[in-house]
Amino acid sequence: MWVVVCYDVNTETREGRRRLRRVAQICKNYGQRVQKSVFECQVDEMKFEQLRKKLLKEIKLELDNLRLYRLTEPREKRVEQYGAVRTVFFDEETLVV
Amino acid sequence: MWVVVCYDVNTETREGRRRLRRVAQICKNYGQRVQKSVFECQVDEMKFEQLRKKLLKEIKLELDNLRLYRLTEPREKRVEQYGAVRTVFFDEETLVV
Repeated sequence: MWVVVCYDVNTETREGRRRLRRVAQICKNYGQRVQKSVFECQVDEMKFEQLRKKLLKEIKLELDNLRLYRLTEPREKRVEQYGAVRTVFFDEETLVV
Repeated sequence: MWVVVCYDVNTETREGRRRLRRVAQICKNYGQRVQKSVFECQVDEMKFEQLRKKLLKEIKLELDNLRLYRLTEPREKRVEQYGAVRTVFFDEETLVV
């Protein structure tokens, strides 16, 4: 199944910026980045469960927001895409410790 | 039908930041903001067509990215939501001319 992961991590603090990088890193292991904070992941129920669990462990519910959208197949009928897809994103550019 | 609008507007320039505000403003007229750059809109085909047209007029295809996801009903079975939904967003805070 196709799942769209959208997150809004509060990056006002250093800890928030770290969470943002970690959330992006988790998503990268499950799918394709399509926007700064949007990933499209093709997963089965088990992988989806894993992904959700990892993300919920990372985000702070009182500061961040996470949304998971399940698309019905075929994906092509559900998604419209316009414009440029960047290949390098902020949290990757600033991957300093 | 429910449509999820996700955008990634390049805000490196002043013109980009203006585009971002305009795109947000368009979306506000069609739905509910759920993240910084994600809106959920309940629209019929005509409204959807209008929304798409307005957004495509605003974004710069070579710099920005726009994705429209159509959710199948019932919406509740398609969306999982975790954490805080902010009420004030960056482009609103900085609405200075």
